[in-house]
Amino acid sequence: MSDEQELGITESKEYNTGEWYAEVVQKADLANYAPEGMSGFIVTRPRAYELWERIQGHLDGLFKDTGVQNAYFPMFIPESYLEQEKDIVEGFDPEVAWVERAGKEELEEPLAVRPTSESIITPYISQWVRSHRDLPLRVNQWVSVVRWEATETKPFFRTKEFLWQEGHTAHATRDDAWAETMRRLDQYEETYEDLLAMPVLRGAKPEHDKFPGADTTTTVEALMPDGKSVQGATSHYLGTSFAEAFDITYTDEDEDSQIAHTTSWGLSWRAIGALIMTHSDDQGLVLPPAIAPDQIVVVPIWQADTKEDVLEYAEGIADDLEDAGIRVELDDRDERNPGFKFNEWELKGVPVRMEIGPNEADDGTATLVHRPDGESAEVDREDIAETVESHFDEVYAKLYAAAEENLTENVREAESRAEILGTIGQHGGYVKAPWCGDEDCETEIKDQIAAEIVMVPLDDEEAEIHHGEECAICGDDAVETAYFAKSY
Amino acid sequence: MSDEQELGITESKEYNTGEWYAEVVQKADLANYAPEGMSGFIVTRPRAYELWERIQGHLDGLFKDTGVQNAYFPMFIPESYLEQEKDIVEGFDPEVAWVERAGKEELEEPLAVRPTSESIITPYISQWVRSHRDLPLRVNQWVSVVRWEATETKPFFRTKEFLWQEGHTAHATRDDAWAETMRRLDQYEETYEDLLAMPVLRGAKPEHDKFPGADTTTTVEALMPDGKSVQGATSHYLGTSFAEAFDITYTDEDEDSQIAHTTSWGLSWRAIGALIMTHSDDQGLVLPPAIAPDQIVVVPIWQADTKEDVLEYAEGIADDLEDAGIRVELDDRDERNPGFKFNEWELKGVPVRMEIGPNEADDGTATLVHRPDGESAEVDREDIAETVESHFDEVYAKLYAAAEENLTENVREAESRAEILGTIGQHGGYVKAPWCGDEDCETEIKDQIAAEIVMVPLDDEEAEIHHGEECAICGDDAVETAYFAKSY
Repeated sequence: MSDEQELGITESKEYNTGEWYAEVVQKADLANYAPEGMSGFIVTRPRAYELWERIQGHLDGLFKDTGVQNAYFPMFIPESYLEQEKDIVEGFDPEVAWVERAGKEELEEPLAVRPTSESIITPYISQWVRSHRDLPLRVNQWVSVVRWEATETKPFFRTKEFLWQEGHTAHATRDDAWAETMRRLDQYEETYEDLLAMPVLRGAKPEHDKFPGADTTTTVEALMPDGKSVQGATSHYLGTSFAEAFDITYTDEDEDSQIAHTTSWGLSWRAIGALIMTHSDDQGLVLPPAIAPDQIVVVPIWQADTKEDVLEYAEGIADDLEDAGIRVELDDRDERNPGFKFNEWELKGVPVRMEIGPNEADDGTATLVHRPDGESAEVDREDIAETVESHFDEVYAKLYAAAEENLTENVREAESRAEILGTIGQHGGYVKAPWCGDEDCETEIKDQIAAEIVMVPLDDEEAEIHHGEECAICGDDAVETAYFAKSY
Repeated sequence: MSDEQELGITESKEYNTGEWYAEVVQKADLANYAPEGMSGFIVTRPRAYELWERIQGHLDGLFKDTGVQNAYFPMFIPESYLEQEKDIVEGFDPEVAWVERAGKEELEEPLAVRPTSESIITPYISQWVRSHRDLPLRVNQWVSVVRWEATETKPFFRTKEFLWQEGHTAHATRDDAWAETMRRLDQYEETYEDLLAMPVLRGAKPEHDKFPGADTTTTVEALMPDGKSVQGATSHYLGTSFAEAFDITYTDEDEDSQIAHTTSWGLSWRAIGALIMTHSDDQGLVLPPAIAPDQIVVVPIWQADTKEDVLEYAEGIADDLEDAGIRVELDDRDERNPGFKFNEWELKGVPVRMEIGPNEADDGTATLVHRPDGESAEVDREDIAETVESHFDEVYAKLYAAAEENLTENVREAESRAEILGTIGQHGGYVKAPWCGDEDCETEIKDQIAAEIVMVPLDDEEAEIHHGEECAICGDDAVETAYFAKSY
């Protein structure tokens, strides 16, 4: 353990959110910054990579249960491929890293390090699809992508290289492709809620903020404690634009040639950033039990004369927990006192701590302490694994409830420009307002307080609330409900 | 299904091994070649990627059970980092792809796309290790790497980008690091044997063919049916050279500063190539059941009047197999006849086929056919899942036995240059010969028949057989037993 860790977290989540976040990431051993000359890149340490592995395991299971197969496409994309879909190039060109020299040769055509893979995957889908019997066709890859954005590095939120999954599918009809778009959005929502204990809002991006070439870009948005929204994952219904550009056609049951409808959808390690930001506190990392690398730490507390008994008792419990499939760490280090251990495991985000002293060993009990709020309970040795599991459920419920309360309290309505600006300025969070659909109206807000329209609801009922009303900004007819927020 | 598939395999494994291999890869839907301008790259299709996922799952489980944690390091490495370990640069420089332009900027320092990650991982290990209590430290990453070799593309065997895992560890002592080197070599051997049904030979690379900077490079070598050896995975004991170059020191129990010993070890998707090459035949892909995406295909055979009964019976069996965790495909397509289906599933490498006709449905039986040799058996409906599992074991045993026979028959001894050349020229395979340890003697063989020393045994007993004898090539004192072979 390094000396820095012993110092604990010094920044305040409430007052210096950015600095606090950077400190938690560093001191909880989640990530390091990359070497000089590589600003924007991070090294993902095992404790953070394990979070990613659990997100991956959860989501990959959902994908495979619903017909998705994984594949692997080259990390490079020829410049001419990117150009073939003009919309993509306009969207991504400034952000691409290029390989022009390799080995001893200058390449004839520059190769882009993939910023996203529609332009190389779609032509292969086109080769693989011949008949309606080949549809739906669904492939996904878990890879890293590079986007050369010149912004300040924020681990997991803003990095030039990031890990993600990108799914790409082709379907016979618009309905099938739209159902696919929604299926993946549902799975992202479920992953945020069940695994990460984070409620999210579902919606569509405004027309002018869609993925280039998409018919509709849908999103799950999570509210951070500092009042900013995070785009948690996106699922795009691409219509027929990519199928037309790359010629994905199929013969239908009447042997007629038809154009396919495609989708793409992705979730990145930004989910890790949102997870850390949402639950953690001024003592360090806080994690829901389902995703925590260590779910419970057992800390035996002894004097010289009780050591043997206490340790034996603690080891027995740790064995039982492990046998039940619980990820348990027994901290029997001699060179550290219990207080130091408590602080260290709080910093590292272990959701439940078990304290065992001579009294517990004598009485056949144990003391459980919940990481999020310090609530403690004395429990029986008997059925200890079941008891611990139920405390995991309680911890999850507390974390989810706190995040949900933050979300619920921070969706407000506004009916004028002044009200939008005032409400976001004062409270942060989301402000719902009737909107005419014109980008200029968003720009007025953006220019003044850097808030934007992060989504419009997908739910028809809510979307139509404001039909017939006036746009809060320009006074023209409103056609949608816009959610304004500052965002990451 | 595309028209090409209907044609079946046209090349001969025995007479045109290279063309046959390329055809199997293409027609069994394993991989496609990358776009023009990207020679050397391939697209890994779902059926091949699933092979990689199973190799990954198996090996990752072994790693995690023995103290390894996964992490993720940037895909780029600054030129100065590569240069810091001069030996690495000499080894890899000509093979590196460079990023010098990204977004709108020319980079101040070129970034290499990682050809291997010692030079970026080791400096972080150096930061993370302070005391003997931090050792051993073991990290692994599953990533792709790029080596710009200007050779003909051979999917999974020779590609400019390939998937692999690279493990990197630091230890307090030479003994610990050597034990780690052997532990990983054991796990590679086990993976080849248990999962891929391939026996391998274990050995060390000659001094002049080690990984640059390594003290010892160990290898598992697999013999292909065309008599060439494949380097299946390598495990390097790096001594203290990387720890010295990147300053990995730790304080021991007496608070003295010590230098660490490091290892690195990797297995790539070449394992997939070796797997395909070893077991497949002129009908297409052959796979051991443990790794096959579909382990068994149920083909119902009906006439109009028996269709309903046969199908219902087949579905019941398929359900039972699925419930038992067996990966089963029920091929109930109307538009294809049984003969077509048999050919298609043979091409795609399904290890066992179950045929069910009206007789089987009436008698409560099923016919099982083994993919490798067409051996068939009538079995009872009762306990069908157990029966099928035992047939999987038989198929594995057949595949392993055939590969083992090929290996055993093709390790021969030689005592002179003429004998080495003649034996390899006539039979291929491995030729063991006493060797003085001088690279020049290997060069003499290499120049004449493109065979090289692929390994010297690690086992002391065998390694010392030839002590006191003469080098088969130059006649000087022999110090090792060299295994000569042509190689992929």
